[in-house]
Amino acid sequence: MEEKEILEPALYLLPSALSEADVDEVIPARNRLITSKLRYFVVENLRTARRWIKRCDRSFSFEGVEMVELNKQTPESEISQMLEPLRQGHPMGVMSEAGCPAVADPGAALVNIAQKEGLKVVPLVGPSSIIMSLMASGMNGQNFAFLGYLPIDEKERRNELRRLERESEEKDRTQIFIETPYRNNKMVEILAETLQPDTLVCVAADITDGERESIVTLPASQWRKRKYDYSKRPVIYLIYRGMGEVAKKRGRRR
Amino acid sequence: MEEKEILEPALYLLPSALSEADVDEVIPARNRLITSKLRYFVVENLRTARRWIKRCDRSFSFEGVEMVELNKQTPESEISQMLEPLRQGHPMGVMSEAGCPAVADPGAALVNIAQKEGLKVVPLVGPSSIIMSLMASGMNGQNFAFLGYLPIDEKERRNELRRLERESEEKDRTQIFIETPYRNNKMVEILAETLQPDTLVCVAADITDGERESIVTLPASQWRKRKYDYSKRPVIYLIYRGMGEVAKKRGRRR
Repeated sequence: MEEKEILEPALYLLPSALSEADVDEVIPARNRLITSKLRYFVVENLRTARRWIKRCDRSFSFEGVEMVELNKQTPESEISQMLEPLRQGHPMGVMSEAGCPAVADPGAALVNIAQKEGLKVVPLVGPSSIIMSLMASGMNGQNFAFLGYLPIDEKERRNELRRLERESEEKDRTQIFIETPYRNNKMVEILAETLQPDTLVCVAADITDGERESIVTLPASQWRKRKYDYSKRPVIYLIYRGMGEVAKKRGRRR
Repeated sequence: MEEKEILEPALYLLPSALSEADVDEVIPARNRLITSKLRYFVVENLRTARRWIKRCDRSFSFEGVEMVELNKQTPESEISQMLEPLRQGHPMGVMSEAGCPAVADPGAALVNIAQKEGLKVVPLVGPSSIIMSLMASGMNGQNFAFLGYLPIDEKERRNELRRLERESEEKDRTQIFIETPYRNNKMVEILAETLQPDTLVCVAADITDGERESIVTLPASQWRKRKYDYSKRPVIYLIYRGMGEVAKKRGRRR
C-alpha cells in the first residue's frame, strides 16, 4: 500500500501491543499506514488507544477524529450506531485494550453487526498471545481449543482440568486457557497437582515483552519441583496429553 | 532491536506470508532484522523459504548458511540433530510453508524437543489465518476450537457438523476448520444444507491477499441462496450457534 493511496471503506481490525514492545516489533508497517489514514475509531479504552495511535504515527493529529468507546459497560442498544460512518462510506478502525481486537473483547459484537449488514471487515496482522504461545509450546496446533477462564471454585476447576486432560488425550487436542494475573502461581500449583505426571503443561508469560518473555513446556511432574513466580504477569496456559505425532516425537509412548 | 545487536541464542519461529502480499503487510520490521542475522534455519520447504528470506532482506547472502528441510517425509530420528547449532549457542530460525510455523506443520516436533531440553523458543508475530478469520467473523473469540480437517466421508462429515453445531450452542463456542481447496464449493454446500437455518457460517477466503480477501458471515439459510465460487482458494470455515453476548447483540434470540 502506497502512502497516498485512498483507504477502501471497511472496518479495519487493528491489533495493538501486548506489552511495551516497540511498534515495529509487533505490527507490520502497513498497519501504521492504515492507522494514520483513519478518522473514525471504535476502541475499548480511549486513553490507551490514543497512546497506541501516537506510537504508530507520531505526527497523528486527533483534530476532527471521532473516537468512541466500546467496552463491557456499553449498552447493547448503542453499538449499531457506532457503524454510521462506515455506512456512509468512511473507513473505520477497531482497537482493543491489547492484542487482536474482536477476539476476547466487545469489539466482536460490532463486527457481528457489520457482517450482518454486509459491510466489509478487514483483519490486520498483529500479536495474538494464543497463537504465539501455541507456536512456542511444541504442542499440537492441528487441533486446539481456547477456553477463556476456567471455573473459579477449586473443586470445579480440578474437575474441569481432568476433563480437559481426558479430552486432550482422546482428541489429540491442545487445551488453552487464561487466569487472572494475581492467581497465576496458584494456577500452576493446581495444574502440577491435578494433572497426570506426564501430561505436558506450558506456561507462556509476558509474550512479546522482550527479555521478560518466558515460554516453558514441562510435564506436570516437573512443575511440582520447579521454582517459579508468575504473579501479576500476563500468562497463557496450555496443556497437552495427545498421543499424536508430537507426543511420539517427544518419546512419550504408552 | 538495533541493527548491530547480537541475536540471543534461541529457536526463532518466523512466520511467512500466506499470500503474495508485501512483506511489510504481513510481518513486523523486527522479524526482517532477526531473519537477516540468522545463519541456521529449519524450514518446511527449501525453495519457498529461500524466496521468503530474499523478500525479507534483498541483500541476504546464503553463503555459509545452513538450511535443512523438515516436512512430513522427514524421519522422526533425524529431527533432534537439527537442533545441534542451537545447542552450540547459535540462534536458529524455523519457517513453515506459509503462515505461523509449528502450528499445523512438522515444526511443532522440533519445538517440542527444544522445550524438552530447556532451549529458549521465541515466537514472532505474523499472519495466522485462524486468528484473523476469527477476528473478522464476529463470532465468539472467548471460546473457540480449531479442528483441522473434518472427516472425508460425507455421512460422517454431516454427523460431525451436527455435533459441532450442538457443542457450539452448549458451550457458546466458535468451531473452526479447513478443507482441501478444490473441495471448497462442496463444503459450503454441505454446511448450508446440514446446519440449522440460523446457525452462523463464516467463509474466510484468501486472507491477507488484498482485494481477493473475502470474509463473509451469514446464517446457513442465506448460504443456500447465495452465489459463490471458492474453488482452489485457501479458505477457513467458522460456525457459531452460541447463545452468548454476540448472539444476543445480533438479535438472534430463541
